[in-house]
Amino acid sequence: MKAGVIGATGYGGAELLRILQSHPQFKIESVYSSSQQGKSIIEHYPHLTDVVPLTLEEIDPAAIAKKTDIVFLATPSGISTEIAPALLKEGCTVIDLSGDFRLKNIHDYEKWYRKTPAPQEWVDKAVYAMPELNRSDIKDTKFISNPGCYPTATLLGLAPIVQNGLIEESSIIIDAKSGVSGAGQTASFHTIYNELNENFKIYKVNAHQHIPEIEQMLSGWGYESPISFNTHLVPMTRGIMTTIYASLKSNVSQEELIKVYNEFYKEEPFIRVRKNGNFPATKEVYGSNYCDMGIGVDTRTGRVTIVSVIDNLMKGAAGQAVQNANILCGFDETAGLHFTPVYP
Amino acid sequence: MKAGVIGATGYGGAELLRILQSHPQFKIESVYSSSQQGKSIIEHYPHLTDVVPLTLEEIDPAAIAKKTDIVFLATPSGISTEIAPALLKEGCTVIDLSGDFRLKNIHDYEKWYRKTPAPQEWVDKAVYAMPELNRSDIKDTKFISNPGCYPTATLLGLAPIVQNGLIEESSIIIDAKSGVSGAGQTASFHTIYNELNENFKIYKVNAHQHIPEIEQMLSGWGYESPISFNTHLVPMTRGIMTTIYASLKSNVSQEELIKVYNEFYKEEPFIRVRKNGNFPATKEVYGSNYCDMGIGVDTRTGRVTIVSVIDNLMKGAAGQAVQNANILCGFDETAGLHFTPVYP
Amino acid sequence: MKAGVIGATGYGGAELLRILQSHPQFKIESVYSSSQQGKSIIEHYPHLTDVVPLTLEEIDPAAIAKKTDIVFLATPSGISTEIAPALLKEGCTVIDLSGDFRLKNIHDYEKWYRKTPAPQEWVDKAVYAMPELNRSDIKDTKFISNPGCYPTATLLGLAPIVQNGLIEESSIIIDAKSGVSGAGQTASFHTIYNELNENFKIYKVNAHQHIPEIEQMLSGWGYESPISFNTHLVPMTRGIMTTIYASLKSNVSQEELIKVYNEFYKEEPFIRVRKNGNFPATKEVYGSNYCDMGIGVDTRTGRVTIVSVIDNLMKGAAGQAVQNANILCGFDETAGLHFTPVYP
Amino acid sequence: MKAGVIGATGYGGAELLRILQSHPQFKIESVYSSSQQGKSIIEHYPHLTDVVPLTLEEIDPAAIAKKTDIVFLATPSGISTEIAPALLKEGCTVIDLSGDFRLKNIHDYEKWYRKTPAPQEWVDKAVYAMPELNRSDIKDTKFISNPGCYPTATLLGLAPIVQNGLIEESSIIIDAKSGVSGAGQTASFHTIYNELNENFKIYKVNAHQHIPEIEQMLSGWGYESPISFNTHLVPMTRGIMTTIYASLKSNVSQEELIKVYNEFYKEEPFIRVRKNGNFPATKEVYGSNYCDMGIGVDTRTGRVTIVSVIDNLMKGAAGQAVQNANILCGFDETAGLHFTPVYP
Repeated sequence: MKAGVIGATGYGGAELLRILQSHPQFKIESVYSSSQQGKSIIEHYPHLTDVVPLTLEEIDPAAIAKKTDIVFLATPSGISTEIAPALLKEGCTVIDLSGDFRLKNIHDYEKWYRKTPAPQEWVDKAVYAMPELNRSDIKDTKFISNPGCYPTATLLGLAPIVQNGLIEESSIIIDAKSGVSGAGQTASFHTIYNELNENFKIYKVNAHQHIPEIEQMLSGWGYESPISFNTHLVPMTRGIMTTIYASLKSNVSQEELIKVYNEFYKEEPFIRVRKNGNFPATKEVYGSNYCDMGIGVDTRTGRVTIVSVIDNLMKGAAGQAVQNANILCGFDETAGLHFTPVYP
Repeated sequence: MKAGVIGATGYGGAELLRILQSHPQFKIESVYSSSQQGKSIIEHYPHLTDVVPLTLEEIDPAAIAKKTDIVFLATPSGISTEIAPALLKEGCTVIDLSGDFRLKNIHDYEKWYRKTPAPQEWVDKAVYAMPELNRSDIKDTKFISNPGCYPTATLLGLAPIVQNGLIEESSIIIDAKSGVSGAGQTASFHTIYNELNENFKIYKVNAHQHIPEIEQMLSGWGYESPISFNTHLVPMTRGIMTTIYASLKSNVSQEELIKVYNEFYKEEPFIRVRKNGNFPATKEVYGSNYCDMGIGVDTRTGRVTIVSVIDNLMKGAAGQAVQNANILCGFDETAGLHFTPVYP
Repeated sequence: MKAGVIGATGYGGAELLRILQSHPQFKIESVYSSSQQGKSIIEHYPHLTDVVPLTLEEIDPAAIAKKTDIVFLATPSGISTEIAPALLKEGCTVIDLSGDFRLKNIHDYEKWYRKTPAPQEWVDKAVYAMPELNRSDIKDTKFISNPGCYPTATLLGLAPIVQNGLIEESSIIIDAKSGVSGAGQTASFHTIYNELNENFKIYKVNAHQHIPEIEQMLSGWGYESPISFNTHLVPMTRGIMTTIYASLKSNVSQEELIKVYNEFYKEEPFIRVRKNGNFPATKEVYGSNYCDMGIGVDTRTGRVTIVSVIDNLMKGAAGQAVQNANILCGFDETAGLHFTPVYP
Repeated sequence: MKAGVIGATGYGGAELLRILQSHPQFKIESVYSSSQQGKSIIEHYPHLTDVVPLTLEEIDPAAIAKKTDIVFLATPSGISTEIAPALLKEGCTVIDLSGDFRLKNIHDYEKWYRKTPAPQEWVDKAVYAMPELNRSDIKDTKFISNPGCYPTATLLGLAPIVQNGLIEESSIIIDAKSGVSGAGQTASFHTIYNELNENFKIYKVNAHQHIPEIEQMLSGWGYESPISFNTHLVPMTRGIMTTIYASLKSNVSQEELIKVYNEFYKEEPFIRVRKNGNFPATKEVYGSNYCDMGIGVDTRTGRVTIVSVIDNLMKGAAGQAVQNANILCGFDETAGLHFTPVYP
């Protein structure tokens, strides 16, 4: 199946190319960039020498639709809004990695992203797709809205306790930490090496645009209260950890809760629930599509501590996008995603 | 005044030497080590070449007392228990940086440290000393128990809202992050570079020995419920950030809360409360004795987000120790502590 | 083909498992450890959860020979000496990643490694195997001595100019830099995070044990003079760069020299010679088996500057070991080695 | 003495402020920026809160001259050319940290910097000032051209062997490595965190603008041949190491050579020559004005290996600038520069 990658010079795009080039079903047909068309992708990314010998092309939806069967949109928020509908009209299958079609309430988009939302009709068409949580929705669509990195780690961590009604309303606090690649390639005083190395920062305090995305899903599970959610930058490139706190409705032991998680995810190839007393570190999923989880119960406070880690560029972006594409296309869900974490 | 440093080859010891060698009142008279006596300290720490040209001596309390007026104990927990009483009996003033004399309930020590506690009588004699919070206790003692790194950042962050009765019982959650120097020089599989670089880890989930230390102080302020407290390792050497969540009893705006903090700390030379909308990063206090704070109020959830950062080796250890020693000796509290953060 | 990995808990062992678990021809039959036998490998390496569900076994050559066809020895120098001959006698094919069988002059081993050398007869049997440089020697052996990490980057960088007789005797200076994973898992004051982070060190000045390994190969090409070779530790986990200086015998332009390299390596799947003016960075080969090279000619001094980068755990260890095993077994040389560099 | 800092928002500027704010003789009177005038410096650098409570002012030489006695120009190359002469005409003493007045042959400047050089007359007036090497030139000037970071580490490393005529012509090769702060605050794809973290790069191969600066000084000592000089970026913020290779004219033992260095620098407060067998790491001078050196002699090749480390922002920029200012003003040369390295 012929695949195109739009926004191929971004980090999400690069990670899609890393996955797709060894995928048994998808073939990278063409790559697109809004600013570097005409250049070989190798000029921007020498690491792809001999691996992806393609020239970056202009983003022309009609031309793209002729060449490709499926298009991955690794474009920033605000750009997918313009491109996705055009591609869909041309008959392409579209996997959008941006935030543009995730929030079903377009006023939320306007409020949290501070940008003009996509038209409601197109937002309605997009299927927000997290395989472990709504796999059945994914099969019958041609338009996937791929979840955000933080929501992926957070919702996978919360689903078992929220869907099983184990936690109190208004008790969820998520303290999230991310490597810097989540910030992409934007060059500013705030993203240069010297400002981030040997430094630990909090950003967008109580204001991150992933908050409504998480709450939208929680609401679908019957948890209606707002969450506390904060994000921090860790001096490393890849990896997200969310440390999740919530109050248990009744006494559940740590061992029992781990059983709940194991049961919930027993069929899932990319979820690894750790044994009692063991908690994952971000590097243990580096470069892979895994989401690893550790479960703690604090009997002193009656709270759970759920630790969920992903590689933000894989399960948090490109990996999950390919997982979704596999499902949508009827391939083995794990096709092309058998990456062992690169450790150390 | 003649100062001795016991445990001089540890990182806390090295930081004490960095401070004391340019202190206007203290003179480093001698340095002690339990394992490297007889060696020049420069063999262990070449960065001290020409700065601290001393030979490490054996830890003999009687001999130490003859040579020095004040002794800094930068020894691990379990060791100070044995040394501090002997030094005090010999007439030395003692500043202990370990955890051995912090917990007034010695059963708590036994439970959380899993070691034999110091005798109750000596624990009773030690003054737990955080200048901004109990300065008056410090002046009339010869035996200081210097606070832990996490408790320092946490309690300075919590004091204004807890002492002013602004937050709900059972609502405090502290998500703490530390650079690796907090782990000291212990060499094991878990502390080598390859295991920590480009990695983010949680450790001692709901079980860190600083929990009872924080709760002991909170209890003194009338907040009696247990806290949720978790600690993470950041791939950097220095710096602690605590992200503190708590529920406000009533509506307070972010601006009003910042005023509360400014008022609370208005006379404090080492506390810097940030302006509305600004939050500190760990590097902004690197190598200095400052504790910087940012204050957030989330009107959606009714919770505060207090961000408190310190250099764990300075305000979290050696810097605060010298600050305490200055008070105890009647010197200017900031003497020898005018370090501008090293940035970038 | 059934493969065993001895020393599976080391970093070289872990990397072999990452490669072999997705290799089309080799199957990981069993894993061995001298210190952790009886434990699941996942206890040591949680990142291998669900990937390598094996228990570490005792190192018993007879038992190993029964179970496996080929054995990878990812053991430290001094240990392979004892194990390899026993395995060979039992009929196993052996790929040894240690330094024990690389130096054909066992007095050199004694001098540079300061250990007892392996018996001369077994050293003689081992084929020192760097596919790009002596592929034909590899096919007819059952005993491979896999090259060192620094020699791999260095010799691949030097081969075209030395074999073509382009450089002056006594002119080679190699300034080498490595990530810390080359030091393995040895836990000491010198390998802990705090000592290496935000630090750049030189080590084993003029005394690294890879010097005679490089000189042995150069000598075979007719370059008989000693080299200057120094090694530095870079605060990162993976990656080696060697910056090589040598004096040109006659005027050759940079463009001409790049042609020499392109011609020399034109059939090589894992060598990527960069275009004029472009030089590789270590991350551009991260997690892959590539060796990337940049070629500079300094007309002011008449010297070349050859920059050669590898991932020390891949082309510098496990990747090259599998490449050698592929050749030896008659498989496609690139089988199981199609790793795109993980970037960023 | 009233000091002004122009370019105060750069890293060199920030480091000057860190030094000057605790200097016994200089008082920071005013700070200047070409782009952020009118803003408090704390908006750009929160770490200076309470330390440097000044507003950035416009760069107006006449106004600056009225307010200040001495001006530090921490401006980029190409900017000092314009500002320095104007300030000097107004009677200010000027310490210029840029490269604009270092090369006495202005054609070299044009060739290596690819910018328009300063007028020859002003270049002639500037004293290139490295105290350990030409202290006597510094006392009688009002215009200092502060050396580059790499030339400082390199020339201090080379001076004893070159001035003593110990090494062969055409034999010097300098392999230099720097932390990223040397690149300043320029925000581009090449300076963002993700591109530099866990990466090691070579840059400006054989083309760095510090080459003629080093050669100019060497030529003054009678060493006339061109040098090989390459620069690499280390994933850390601060620190430079130069690894210097050169051929000895005759047999000198390592011990004898160390004596030569000790003799050469015996009166120097900021040079620390290491003992036999010991080599410095960059972190051992972090935040200080020291230049530490290790001396190796390789009897196999007849070459020396000189390892010289500095903090590029201190001895490589701001620290040396203040050292020069101290000499020029007749103060104790070490005034305000007693910084113990921040370790770890």
